[in-house]
Amino acid sequence: MKKILVANRGEIALRIMRSAKEMGIKTVAVFSEADRNALHVRYADEAICLGEAASTASYLNIQKVIDACKLTGAEAIHPGYGFLSENPDFARKVKAAGIILIGPSPEAMEIMGNKLSAKAAALKYQIPLVPGTEEAITNIEQAKERATSIGFPVLIKAAAGGGGKGMRLVHQVEDFEEQMKLAISEAESAFGDGAVFIEKYVTSPRHIEIQVLGDQHGNIVHLFERECSVQRRHQKVVEEAPSAVLDEATRAKMGKCAVDVARSVNYTGAGTVEFILDADKNFFFLEMNTRLQVEHPVTEMITGVDLVKEQIKIARGEVLSFSQDDLSIRGHAIELRVYAEDPANNFLPDIGTLKTYKTPKGIGVRVDDGFEQGMEIPIYYDPMIAKLVTYGKNREEAIERMLRAIEEYQISGIETTLPFGSFVMQHEAFISGNFDTHFVAKYFKPDVLKQQNNEEERIAAILAYRLFTKSSIQNLVAAGQQTSNWLRNRRNW
Amino acid sequence: MKKILVANRGEIALRIMRSAKEMGIKTVAVFSEADRNALHVRYADEAICLGEAASTASYLNIQKVIDACKLTGAEAIHPGYGFLSENPDFARKVKAAGIILIGPSPEAMEIMGNKLSAKAAALKYQIPLVPGTEEAITNIEQAKERATSIGFPVLIKAAAGGGGKGMRLVHQVEDFEEQMKLAISEAESAFGDGAVFIEKYVTSPRHIEIQVLGDQHGNIVHLFERECSVQRRHQKVVEEAPSAVLDEATRAKMGKCAVDVARSVNYTGAGTVEFILDADKNFFFLEMNTRLQVEHPVTEMITGVDLVKEQIKIARGEVLSFSQDDLSIRGHAIELRVYAEDPANNFLPDIGTLKTYKTPKGIGVRVDDGFEQGMEIPIYYDPMIAKLVTYGKNREEAIERMLRAIEEYQISGIETTLPFGSFVMQHEAFISGNFDTHFVAKYFKPDVLKQQNNEEERIAAILAYRLFTKSSIQNLVAAGQQTSNWLRNRRNW
Repeated sequence: MKKILVANRGEIALRIMRSAKEMGIKTVAVFSEADRNALHVRYADEAICLGEAASTASYLNIQKVIDACKLTGAEAIHPGYGFLSENPDFARKVKAAGIILIGPSPEAMEIMGNKLSAKAAALKYQIPLVPGTEEAITNIEQAKERATSIGFPVLIKAAAGGGGKGMRLVHQVEDFEEQMKLAISEAESAFGDGAVFIEKYVTSPRHIEIQVLGDQHGNIVHLFERECSVQRRHQKVVEEAPSAVLDEATRAKMGKCAVDVARSVNYTGAGTVEFILDADKNFFFLEMNTRLQVEHPVTEMITGVDLVKEQIKIARGEVLSFSQDDLSIRGHAIELRVYAEDPANNFLPDIGTLKTYKTPKGIGVRVDDGFEQGMEIPIYYDPMIAKLVTYGKNREEAIERMLRAIEEYQISGIETTLPFGSFVMQHEAFISGNFDTHFVAKYFKPDVLKQQNNEEERIAAILAYRLFTKSSIQNLVAAGQQTSNWLRNRRNW
Repeated sequence: MKKILVANRGEIALRIMRSAKEMGIKTVAVFSEADRNALHVRYADEAICLGEAASTASYLNIQKVIDACKLTGAEAIHPGYGFLSENPDFARKVKAAGIILIGPSPEAMEIMGNKLSAKAAALKYQIPLVPGTEEAITNIEQAKERATSIGFPVLIKAAAGGGGKGMRLVHQVEDFEEQMKLAISEAESAFGDGAVFIEKYVTSPRHIEIQVLGDQHGNIVHLFERECSVQRRHQKVVEEAPSAVLDEATRAKMGKCAVDVARSVNYTGAGTVEFILDADKNFFFLEMNTRLQVEHPVTEMITGVDLVKEQIKIARGEVLSFSQDDLSIRGHAIELRVYAEDPANNFLPDIGTLKTYKTPKGIGVRVDDGFEQGMEIPIYYDPMIAKLVTYGKNREEAIERMLRAIEEYQISGIETTLPFGSFVMQHEAFISGNFDTHFVAKYFKPDVLKQQNNEEERIAAILAYRLFTKSSIQNLVAAGQQTSNWLRNRRNW
């Protein structure tokens, strides 16, 4: 494999190209017209413009991506995450064109891409699922019986539903009948179908996922867990590895289950098995992501394994160079997704130009980004600017380091999730490890960030005062200018 | 300890402030007039100008540093490396002023600062020294006897000498008498003193040093070795940990010796015991550096220990939080010192403005630097711009990653050691691990770098050609402009 086409953009395109370069493999970038000055285009050995900004005309256009591959002679495609990465149709067409897809088989993608077939596959290995009815139900008495055996609280969900419509949370058996009737009538009027599912409602749910790697020779290992419970708008924003709450026994059990889920579809490449963990450390299989995850770096930091290199080696047909016993956790890593969005305004995207853009450096800090000072965050795509990852010998050090790195990160021109990250790192619930997916809903009030800003200005003012009044050493030159410069910079730091 | 003054500049000042910040400790920067816009001044919570650019008027001025400490209420001083870091007089004055010096005792500095007393201390623990006469000698017969018992080749060195004057390398006993006479007469005419030392000449010497940490309670551990054999002008330029050639038994032996050397002076804080290793894996104590070393990050990468934090904790009187058995090596790290100097012109300093300055990022890359784009490298101090450190699961990956990081590093406006680093990483002797301190003298010819440059331009031209002629996809917009942009950027990457 001498040349790889990276069918993606932004930080993940650069991420993949870096590992390819280290392996001595040439890279081809593809880009949309909106991305023509993007860093991934410059970084690659060759670059092909796919078309207009809209994803459907560029990064999602299967034929154009395959054509770019043929044109440049790239032997393989790395799809990154998002876009075409979990599209079985794309996977099939790539294969048909005689190109290697760096990822699992189209069949594995297909099975895991559908909730029902994914659960059916998992059941072959007795993987725990969230308890509930396997088929839609309309009979109230039967439903009540099932709900009682599952144990309250339960969720009643419209079979045809979505968006929370026809969904009812029931805390005790006495309320069940009334709520079920309401759910059915809501479902009937919304979807014309009154059938519902009954499912256990997991209180204090934590999102914990296991990284797996499988080669083409039947070897599958897991690389421990990532905790992704801090989410806003049901999307991850802070991830860490290992989880603050998993004990060795649960970790081993979840790891084994994840390997089994992967085995159920003869999984090859890097994949992630997502679980929900309840307050009693019971875990239930949710779904499998058949691609590299955004948050994969935290796993790389604690295991020392370059996941992109492993993906490429697996696609080349190599046997995994390590077994489960060779893998171990060292230290702790946290990732903060730095999004161009305003945490004080319900995390709405805040697109614009990076007037100032300086990244933190030094011990234990990794920045994966796709932008430079002066560049614009295009409105067409996911507004992620960077992934800020810190590593420490333990969780406490990773948190301290994240706070330091956030303070060093200088971004002006747009709002970002950096202050939110700072809020999370300093919140008692996060520090103690006692949090769940409701973290943001429970604790985050935009006002908190405003207070933080005031605090910073107050400190800057005090420091400026000290510099002016106390610095009597002879050679304190141009104190005024120096201090005002410093004060300005200080606010950026 | 609430506030620390960092009596240094550049990358090491930032390095120290980062760890202090993570520990919640405020920092005070000191700076010379030449450094008033330096990053370490902006990074600190307070900053004091010490005086004019010349080191003697600023960073080397003991009284001003102590005054700055008193003025700002800093309770401790971290001296970094160079400047006042190994000055026992400074250490005593700091102590007398009631300030904590983050470093060893003045006594330990003093003993290790003198070659003779350092050797005497080491001998208390039977640490191997380079075999030779302990006292100066003038009697030729006695000298010959001694040389024979040491074993050839030997060096004859003027006792009063320096700079290679009066120094003779003798390969066999037959030549000894003649060479000794020449050495004596050379020494007499140069120094008015014909006395000489006889010392074993170590062929294929490797510079290997051991990091130690000692607390104030008598606990001393070592953090394994760093190999620093790639030197230019007798100064380290590429360092790595662990060494490519040390076996477990030798590592353990050297580690024990290093701990003993530290124990001989009741060493506290971070220190480094330097050894010379010969081709047969015999090692001899050279000297002890009683400070943090420039190359300390490679040790941090493979052990997961933040050495600056440990220094601060030790200075606070804390007991080391780990024992020797808790420490282990994981992976491999390499550091390249990025100097503002021209490797094609005998590594002479090449001072100027950083017209372009962009640092590499992503997996396994750490940059410790003290500059930003647009800044000038001042002529007054050591011309180091940055330390580029890469980490990999093994030595091969650390090398690949270093090559990738060097390629990503964009510096224009001045010459740097980056191309030299690239040369080292690709040299067969370095890759195989079969090299010694003569690496640069043996293998490096400036012409090699020029060839590298030509190669890059050739590749860029070929790629440009491909982009123009082969890109027939409909939407390849503004191909000409895109390609020339890309080509220009490509050369920077």
